[in-house]
Amino acid sequence: MLSIRPATNTDVPLILEFIRDLAEFEREPQAAVATADDLIRDGFTEGTPPKFHVLLAHWDGEPAGFALYFFNYSTWIGKPGLYLEDLFVKPHMRGKGIGKALLAELARVALREDCYGMRWQVLDWNQPAIDFYESLGAKLLREWITVRIMNEKPDEPLRKLAGMQAK
Amino acid sequence: MLSIRPATNTDVPLILEFIRDLAEFEREPQAAVATADDLIRDGFTEGTPPKFHVLLAHWDGEPAGFALYFFNYSTWIGKPGLYLEDLFVKPHMRGKGIGKALLAELARVALREDCYGMRWQVLDWNQPAIDFYESLGAKLLREWITVRIMNEKPDEPLRKLAGMQAK
Repeated sequence: MLSIRPATNTDVPLILEFIRDLAEFEREPQAAVATADDLIRDGFTEGTPPKFHVLLAHWDGEPAGFALYFFNYSTWIGKPGLYLEDLFVKPHMRGKGIGKALLAELARVALREDCYGMRWQVLDWNQPAIDFYESLGAKLLREWITVRIMNEKPDEPLRKLAGMQAK
Repeated sequence: MLSIRPATNTDVPLILEFIRDLAEFEREPQAAVATADDLIRDGFTEGTPPKFHVLLAHWDGEPAGFALYFFNYSTWIGKPGLYLEDLFVKPHMRGKGIGKALLAELARVALREDCYGMRWQVLDWNQPAIDFYESLGAKLLREWITVRIMNEKPDEPLRKLAGMQAK
């Protein structure tokens, strides 16, 4: 039987395991360098607003999957939105409707928080996920390209940009 | 001469004007339905954490452009990121380096907040913007497709999803 509940600080090792599993599935296992200290500091420190939220799914008491989200904002609609950063169900737990149940719970959170909707991203080669999302009535915004600037060596573009002064 | 400063609640009419100008540029003027009340409630209400932040650029005292942002989270890196939702410079103010100065100020905010970097999105037909972002060292993440679920009539997919129960 399925149960879904918000995560607490004692769940951090399990959350990290899911994050690493997901990075491996997305073919970038070396990119998942977050530590338990990072997640506790940013998500589970009393007196500090959490920078993310986590729902955990268990099947017959066994960890089965997770959803990690935070809120964004639509300046056109004038409301917050729920942004789903990570959604993952363990391979041997698939086919039980756990992913859909996590998305349904997120939709309830979004409605409760008066959000305009939910957003997330999918890799263009993950056709089963694309088909699944479209079957729920989600729309693909293919005309938007994501842009990122970070501090990759040797150029450190973010730091270089920060150093630019106005004319 | 250029000046950049954080917006306050008295700037909301100007912010709304910029939001509508940007929606028009993005060929969806009818989609910008946010009101001044929405922006004050979500961004400028004392005692409530703001759901977004705004930088305003003025040129010789005249409103020239804006940047609206909030924070996301990288579960791989274990740090927040700065997410730039809107960046706009008035057409007759272009060519003065105002867009770059706003991005540079955002990069300084991102470094101050210990972010892994900055993210935003660009329309695939906006080649001048794409070239500009790449010239700063930003990378295009073309393999990620954005997915959105909302409550469009008549099906209201978000509400329908929220009503689904686990098996």
